Formats: sequence, structure tokens, C-alpha cells
Amino acid sequence: MERFFSQRARDVRRSVLRELLKFTQRPEIISFAGGTPDPGTFPWEELADIAAREIREDYARALQYSTTEGDTGLREELLKVVRADGIEAELDEIVITTASQQGLDLIARTLLDPGDVVYVELPTYLGAIQAFRAVGARLVGIPLEEDGMDLDALRERIAADKARGERAKFIYVIPDFQNPAGVRWSEGKRRELLGIAAEEDLLVVEDAPYRALRFAGGPIPSLKALDREDRVIFLFTLSKILAPGLRIAALIGSEGIVDKIVAMKQAADLCTPALTQALAREFLRRHDLEAHMEKIRACYREKRDRMLAALGRYMPGGVRWTEPEGGLFLWVTLPEGVDTERMFPKALERKVAYVIGAPFFVDGSGRNTMRLSFAIATPEEIEEGIRRLAEVVKEELAALSAPAQL
Amino acid sequence: MERFFSQRARDVRRSVLRELLKFTQRPEIISFAGGTPDPGTFPWEELADIAAREIREDYARALQYSTTEGDTGLREELLKVVRADGIEAELDEIVITTASQQGLDLIARTLLDPGDVVYVELPTYLGAIQAFRAVGARLVGIPLEEDGMDLDALRERIAADKARGERAKFIYVIPDFQNPAGVRWSEGKRRELLGIAAEEDLLVVEDAPYRALRFAGGPIPSLKALDREDRVIFLFTLSKILAPGLRIAALIGSEGIVDKIVAMKQAADLCTPALTQALAREFLRRHDLEAHMEKIRACYREKRDRMLAALGRYMPGGVRWTEPEGGLFLWVTLPEGVDTERMFPKALERKVAYVIGAPFFVDGSGRNTMRLSFAIATPEEIEEGIRRLAEVVKEELAALSAPAQL
Repeated sequence: MERFFSQRARDVRRSVLRELLKFTQRPEIISFAGGTPDPGTFPWEELADIAAREIREDYARALQYSTTEGDTGLREELLKVVRADGIEAELDEIVITTASQQGLDLIARTLLDPGDVVYVELPTYLGAIQAFRAVGARLVGIPLEEDGMDLDALRERIAADKARGERAKFIYVIPDFQNPAGVRWSEGKRRELLGIAAEEDLLVVEDAPYRALRFAGGPIPSLKALDREDRVIFLFTLSKILAPGLRIAALIGSEGIVDKIVAMKQAADLCTPALTQALAREFLRRHDLEAHMEKIRACYREKRDRMLAALGRYMPGGVRWTEPEGGLFLWVTLPEGVDTERMFPKALERKVAYVIGAPFFVDGSGRNTMRLSFAIATPEEIEEGIRRLAEVVKEELAALSAPAQL
Repeated sequence: MERFFSQRARDVRRSVLRELLKFTQRPEIISFAGGTPDPGTFPWEELADIAAREIREDYARALQYSTTEGDTGLREELLKVVRADGIEAELDEIVITTASQQGLDLIARTLLDPGDVVYVELPTYLGAIQAFRAVGARLVGIPLEEDGMDLDALRERIAADKARGERAKFIYVIPDFQNPAGVRWSEGKRRELLGIAAEEDLLVVEDAPYRALRFAGGPIPSLKALDREDRVIFLFTLSKILAPGLRIAALIGSEGIVDKIVAMKQAADLCTPALTQALAREFLRRHDLEAHMEKIRACYREKRDRMLAALGRYMPGGVRWTEPEGGLFLWVTLPEGVDTERMFPKALERKVAYVIGAPFFVDGSGRNTMRLSFAIATPEEIEEGIRRLAEVVKEELAALSAPAQL
């Protein structure tokens, strides 16, 4: 069979994470591993009514093929949503994608040839790593600090890559409450990044799935809102603010980019489901998105607070974690020498699960890190789960500091 | 901007057809151009009920992420459907795709490197041409006869390509009521094709969107049902028998292929919408698909009959057309010298539209052909539209046979 596979198929592997995640779904396990939002935040009553009505009253559209660029009414509604956040774009600068994963895939196929360089954060989103590697890109990781990417390190890497004649295409960042690390970029670093992109003539891909889920701290403009040169491709999704089961996202960029992305999408899946587009369009038309998001933010704020308090209460010294002002994730760094993949089975034994950090690092580092989601567990489970996890960490640290057996 | 595009993005073009189709949507035009099914065949009442109930009673699943391989219950239902058609497959041999266009795209990315050869019918489905060309495949067209591909020509081309050291991966065919030509392969040719694939160690991709829409002629087994060597990758879609707006299809193949396709799909769109999967699953569980399909077949049979009768009544001598026993399309070949692209504006003037044939031919031939869909127009519109089209053809033939002006 092997002879039939393309080079990229031979290279592709199902992710380690995927395999580990299977173990975390046993009901007795308190899992901080998933990346999914809390189903309690889904506006299911509204969506049930809309679905029935759209299918009954508009089935010739809701159940038919859509256009490749997406339902015009939905694109108009999404433009209003991002306009309220400072982003000005026209109808020919937005395309609906089958969630943001497809946006990342279409960007990869539209912009990247094998060997092209993409700068990413250390750590960064796993789905982006997969999409960019699937077309043979070379991913260069730049350390993430508390207020965003280490931009001096970025400048040095760009200079070094240029000196070697490497061809770089774009910088991929998740500036708001990043998956996995929960970090938010400062406004200063955002402006500086755009300056670097202009100097070096690079594009910027801004992935913003958690941007609307800010439950602490003041507003900071998106890169796209600050962008005066049409360098930023902005990925906006309804997965975390309505429901991921709709698979509705939008890619916003210059008309030239969007035109190519549409041509690529034609070959990829022809169009995103008309039905889920109709649901999103009518929700945005008939309901108050901002009021809905306030409810979601309150839900996640409470859970984050509970997790932070539990970490403070139970974790031993030497363990550090981020204090995210939004999103679903919190990032834990254990003392050097701890390997969270090796520790994973011990956590499962204690009936608690997390996501190992290393797969999020394109340079192979991060073995002592882990991602914790506070989205799915109840506040009580969060308390108990962190208590169990702290026990595992303490044992691991004790084992590490014990004299080696001869 | 150009410097940022990948090689494949530079090569990709929005299709000519797409641009032509825009002209056909004016309400005064009788269009045989679209490729969409008749919305009157959508089971919208059932789907409206199911949508409301699934979202209300099972929102934590229907609105959440699905798995990449797809909803297990839906895969089981689809396996039952194809089992009734002679195809035996297990759960790890089927993956849900965001309609069959994604199936074609994932096949392309999983199996094809630039320069790899794919054998296709002349003419063949445009979406397949796009997906395979997007990864740089070399498409070799083999003439389609009334009972399927000219297999002697296929043998010759395979031998010639082997002699030149070309690497061929698979043969792509639409054996049942092909889009665009409406042709159905004989059982003899199906068996012979599988023999050739075995001899030459090639895979076969069988695209079967219209297979269930048989309204005349007896049953003929699918290639997949005849396949004893796991060489056939079978694409099955609900787009033409439920509704295309769901974007639900399945790819069925050997476990090794399906495993790679799933890994590729993870990077492409992570998962197909859980909601549209739930709708398809519950329709198949609660309703009689066969009874539903009987209604659809009756609808298209009537329209086909009307179109065949009108063609016989109005078309001048020298014009030939297929008499499809299923599907949505009928294929018209005009006398040599007529160029259906050149004729197209004249048809629009007479307020009738078709799809030009040439884009379906990977070798650039077929300029005197056109595809007519009988799916969307009413029987009355079919009668009147064919009458108009025949007038255009007669004028074109008269102009061709007139002495050249000096």
C-alpha cells in the first residue's frame, strides 16, 4: 500500500495528543485535557428554533449548495461583528470557511511551498502546526513571553534566515489568550510586530478564536485593526462563541488573498454547509451576540478563578502557571527535569488528565509543560482534579530528587 | 502580493464555468446549466423536525466538535445503506467527509505527488479535475463510450506511460450516470477495469453520487461491490439523495487508506459539522430512505423523458445526445465545427443556458459538446427551453454551412 501514498501522506502522523486524549474520556477521570468549549454555553434553544424555521421556510436555500465564498447575509453579519471590534473590511475581503482549521489549511496551500519559512510562537496551536507542515513548510519557533513573542529573538531569526537565503512568507500568531498558553500580547508588541512585518515584507496570520472570550483586563486592539498595509490575514470563528458543531469561521484579508483562497476552497470542499451558515446568519440577525458572550465570559471567569485558586492551594513550590485574562486554557511549567509525557500514566492512575506540552513546541522543547483547560470541568471537579494533579507532581518531584538507585 | 503565493496558488484559476454560470441566474433565463438537485426533492419537513429535536435533546453532541473520522452512528447507518447495495465494509474502513468534493481533495493529497498520473474519463467531473490538478497531478483522458471507458485505449496509454517511466496511481471513474455525460458502465467493462487495475497494480477511485438515482434499466453492481482486492476507494454522498446543504458524504476504502485520509482530514477541517451529521444519522434511522429515493427517481424520470422528447422533436439532424438511465445530466454532441462556448452568448440572448463541454475534457477537446441538466427546470420549462436551444443550434449550423464571406 505504501507505494501509493504521496510524500506528504508518508510524513503525516496522527498526533500523539489524539492518542492520549482517548484515555482521558473514561467517565471516572477528571479531564483538563479537552480543547472543547462548555456545551452549557451553546445557545441551543435559539439554534433549535432557527434550524426548524430556516429548513421549513427557506429549504430551497438552507438545504441547497451555497456559494464557495459563503452566504452573503452571513458575511455581512460577520463584518458587522468585527467592525464593532475595529476591523473595517468589505464583502470581497471575507470568505466563510469550514471552521478555522480550514482557514489554516487554505492559507497553507495558498501561501506555502515546501521549505518556505513560517515564524510561530513557542508554544503554538497544534492544528496550525499540522496544516503548515502538511505542505512542507519549515516552522521556526520564537519564544513566547508574558506579553507576547520575544521580538528581539524574532528579528535575529529573520536576519539569520535571510543571510542563509531562506524564503519566509508569514508570521503566525494567536495574540489573544493563546491556545495553548493563555498569553495575551501587549499593544506595544502588536505594533512592533506590524513594524517588523512591514520592514521585512512579511504577511501576518492572526488567529483569534478566543479574542471575544476576554473576562479580565482592558481592551487591546487586534493586529488586523492596527494593520494599515493589508498585511494581516484575520481568522475569526464562531466555534467558541456559538458552537463548534456548526463549523463556521471567516477568513478576512486583502481582496487578492481572498480571491485565491476562494479558488482553493472550490477544490477543497466546494462550499461550507448552507444549513449551518443559515443558523449562524439568523442567530446574528435575531439575537444579541454581545449579551450572549457576556454569559459565556462569566462562566469561564468563574472556572478560571477556581482553577487558579486550586493551583495556589495545592501545587508545590517551583511550579509556575499563566493567569489568562480570557480563553479556555492555562499553561503550567514544572521544574526542569520533569517530563509530563512520562508523568501522564501516573496522572491517569490518579484519575486526572491534562495535555502534554511538547507537541505545541515546533523545536522539540517544552517537555516539562502541560496545558490545562478549565472549560469543561465543573468548579467542584476543578478543585478535586487540581488536588489530584498536585499529588502526582509532588510524587514526581520527590522521585526526581531521590538519590539514583545503583 | 504575487510573491507570497505558492506555486499551486499561482496555477489555480477560478473555473470558466463558474463565471459563465453567473449569467444563467437571471430569472428570465431557462437554465439547464446548474448542477444542483431539485429542492422539491429535499425531505425538508423530516429534516426540520430532526434538527429541532437533535439540537434540543442532544445539543452537547449536535453542537460540539465531532471526531475526525465522523459520528459513529452515522457511519453505521451509511454502512447499512451501502451493504444493501452489495458493499461490505467495517467501521474502520469508512470516514465522513465534508461532501464528496472533500473526499476527492483528500484522495489527491493522500495519493498524489506532482507529476503522478491519473487516468480519467473524457469527459469527467470538473471538481475532480480541480482537486487532482491542485496537487500537480498529470491527468490522462481516456475516451468514454456508450458503455463506459474505452478500455483498449486505457491499456495502450498505460503501456505507453510505463514505457516512459511515468508513475501512475489510480483510475478515476464515475460509472453510474456520469456527471457530465450521463453514461453508465456495463458490468462487463466494470469487471474488465478491475482486471486491468490488478494487472497493472493501480487503485481505482469510484465516484458514485448518482448511483442511487437509477430510474431506468436493471441493476449493475458497483466496482466496489465487485472488488476482491481492496483496490477501490468508493465515494458515496447524500448530496443528491437527501440535500447538498448538509455536505455529508463518506469515503470507503481499505483500513490503510482510510487511516491516512483521517490524518489528512485532521489538518484540512478537523471534522465535518456534528449538526449536519446528526441530521443525516437520524434521517437514516427514522425514515425509509428507499421510499424517499423512489420519489426522487420518479421526479427525475419524468423530467428526463420530457427533455428527451423535446430534443427529438426540435433538434436538427446531426445533433446527438445520451439517453441516461439515471442521474441529472444529459450530454449533447453537436456537429464538428460548432463551438458551444462561442454559441453561448447567442443562447443567452434567446434566454436559454447550458454548460459548455470543453472544461470537462482534460485533453482540451469537446468544443462541440454541452451538458444539459434536467433537474431544476419544470417540465414546461424543459419543453420551451429545448425549443429555444434548438433554434440557436439551427442558426449556428446555418451560419457554419454558409459560404465564408470574403
